[in-house]
Amino acid sequence: MATSFAFLWFSFFTLLSSTVSIAKITPGFPSSIIRPEKLSHTTKNQLYKQKYFTQILDHFNFNPQSYQTFQQRYLINDTFWGGAHKNAPIFVYMGNEGDVEWFTQNTGFMFETAPHFKALLIFIEHRFYGKSIPFGGNKDVAYSNSSTHGYLSSTQALADYATLIIDLKKNLSATDSPVVVFGGSYGGMLAAWFRLKYPHITIGALASSSPILHFENITSPYIFNSIITKNFRSESENCYKVIKGSWQQIEDKANQPGGLETLRKSFRICKNYISASSLESWLYTAYTYTAMTDYPTPSNFLSPLPAYPVKQMCKAIDNPTTGNDTFAKLYGVANIYYNYSGSATCFDLRR
Amino acid sequence: MATSFAFLWFSFFTLLSSTVSIAKITPGFPSSIIRPEKLSHTTKNQLYKQKYFTQILDHFNFNPQSYQTFQQRYLINDTFWGGAHKNAPIFVYMGNEGDVEWFTQNTGFMFETAPHFKALLIFIEHRFYGKSIPFGGNKDVAYSNSSTHGYLSSTQALADYATLIIDLKKNLSATDSPVVVFGGSYGGMLAAWFRLKYPHITIGALASSSPILHFENITSPYIFNSIITKNFRSESENCYKVIKGSWQQIEDKANQPGGLETLRKSFRICKNYISASSLESWLYTAYTYTAMTDYPTPSNFLSPLPAYPVKQMCKAIDNPTTGNDTFAKLYGVANIYYNYSGSATCFDLRR
Repeated sequence: MATSFAFLWFSFFTLLSSTVSIAKITPGFPSSIIRPEKLSHTTKNQLYKQKYFTQILDHFNFNPQSYQTFQQRYLINDTFWGGAHKNAPIFVYMGNEGDVEWFTQNTGFMFETAPHFKALLIFIEHRFYGKSIPFGGNKDVAYSNSSTHGYLSSTQALADYATLIIDLKKNLSATDSPVVVFGGSYGGMLAAWFRLKYPHITIGALASSSPILHFENITSPYIFNSIITKNFRSESENCYKVIKGSWQQIEDKANQPGGLETLRKSFRICKNYISASSLESWLYTAYTYTAMTDYPTPSNFLSPLPAYPVKQMCKAIDNPTTGNDTFAKLYGVANIYYNYSGSATCFDLRR
Repeated sequence: MATSFAFLWFSFFTLLSSTVSIAKITPGFPSSIIRPEKLSHTTKNQLYKQKYFTQILDHFNFNPQSYQTFQQRYLINDTFWGGAHKNAPIFVYMGNEGDVEWFTQNTGFMFETAPHFKALLIFIEHRFYGKSIPFGGNKDVAYSNSSTHGYLSSTQALADYATLIIDLKKNLSATDSPVVVFGGSYGGMLAAWFRLKYPHITIGALASSSPILHFENITSPYIFNSIITKNFRSESENCYKVIKGSWQQIEDKANQPGGLETLRKSFRICKNYISASSLESWLYTAYTYTAMTDYPTPSNFLSPLPAYPVKQMCKAIDNPTTGNDTFAKLYGVANIYYNYSGSATCFDLRR
């Protein structure tokens, strides 16, 4: 199996196919998948307590608006903690661009390691996400224009974390407890930057699956697709070749009279909408998000998936019963990402 | 001679006398002394060229006002520079809270060391000072209220320096030239913080006479006065004792009928204003600013002074011809700081 590879901060990436250009296909961050109502509230009550911290809106200016505050949510678990009197460590998760409960419920590593270190666990929600919305908690106001939305920046988020950690340690009389920060994907970038910018607050950072060097003139803009391609190719050369050739086949078919109807039937697309580019985008999302969550166990992070889902996708492609029918092979792929539960009767490309 | 000791960022200090309380006396930063018209323009033309950089008003937000820019002044001297092709270093002075020309003309160290390292010299002016005034360069507008003045912060100033240095290196094709930052007093704090916060931009920082640990719960609030006291005491025990006892003598005299007139005559105060506290403040300023600029050569930084001015003040106090006349002794002290040129016929306490 290829190295597990997951990052979510798509805004960084110019997405280009390794074969025909699908540069027009730019999957957004799957925020629509993060639905608070989907969060496991049963698990939640055992995993953490929910708290709020009165946070400064602007850490770097002294303008009148800067004096405003907002309620920042954080989650806390002290069941493993050795306590302040023993200077037991504090593990802090740097919240990503989403509801912090979603990340917390998918961050097994901190819960698994906490007992060994007798660590206190803190998960801080990123400003402008989940329940940590400035301007009165009203998302419509906070996101309305740049005069409010302009306070959403990674620098401000890092300062939030610094402020909250310092205050929390004081309140717990744990000023001598070492702090280690953790993060994945964009949150991993925050963790790494936090260690650089606030070395007096944290003794170490773990940045998991984090594109910390993915900046112009440092890393190739094609690296994201290259790694995804490598993931599939590492499963089988045929898997890679079928996917690579499929983009042209889809476009050729779409350009034939009645071709879009054939594609609709091949992929069981609901009767609302189809085009070559939307179909390609839909498949591209399935490949990339599956590679991003190519975990060795069944999981439900971006979507419900079996263990080793990339391997499963390549099995569908390499399946001898589908012969040379590329569309039948890709339909099998799509079913793994979009229909692991088996309940879908047709697919909506605009989902 | 006591260790030379100079820092200017008075806003940090709770100033308390080591004897009777003169906490009410809080000498301000001597900005009134920094008059651009007093700057040596003859020297200037040999020392540096003056340039401007279009700087971002707000480095940390994306609010509409943040897109504004201002003209930031910097001074440059390339006469010693080994050049970009040799990766010769760049020495950058982190401008303090004043006209950058004033600091540049008093920063001999960088000019003295530059030839040895073949260094390029850059002196950057701090935002809101000198000619680097945001909001159209209009000081009245920039300082009018917190909606404009709120952009004056050390964090923003550090980001200014980072932005300017990166851009300058690119323009000089000197991206591989190592950068060392320098600063004195508050500017030294900026230099130290710059090394911490922008380790990818500078390989080292020299913070001279810089109160980098002068924060609540780290350093005693009495440290400033303790060091000043130590300076004078290291010259002579009698010098220290006379000054220590003088505050009570001034207040006792001021409370006697006609006492203020006696004090006025003793200190040759002009006929506009006198009070015990204003006289104490005036003397306190003389002691502290002299200790802050206790250089081994005649100088003219805050005021024209002889070499080793603290030693000169203690000589005036220990002078046997003044016998037990404390006021005559202190008048001698005041003359060293306020009248080194010898041209004053009387003193204005509100200067």
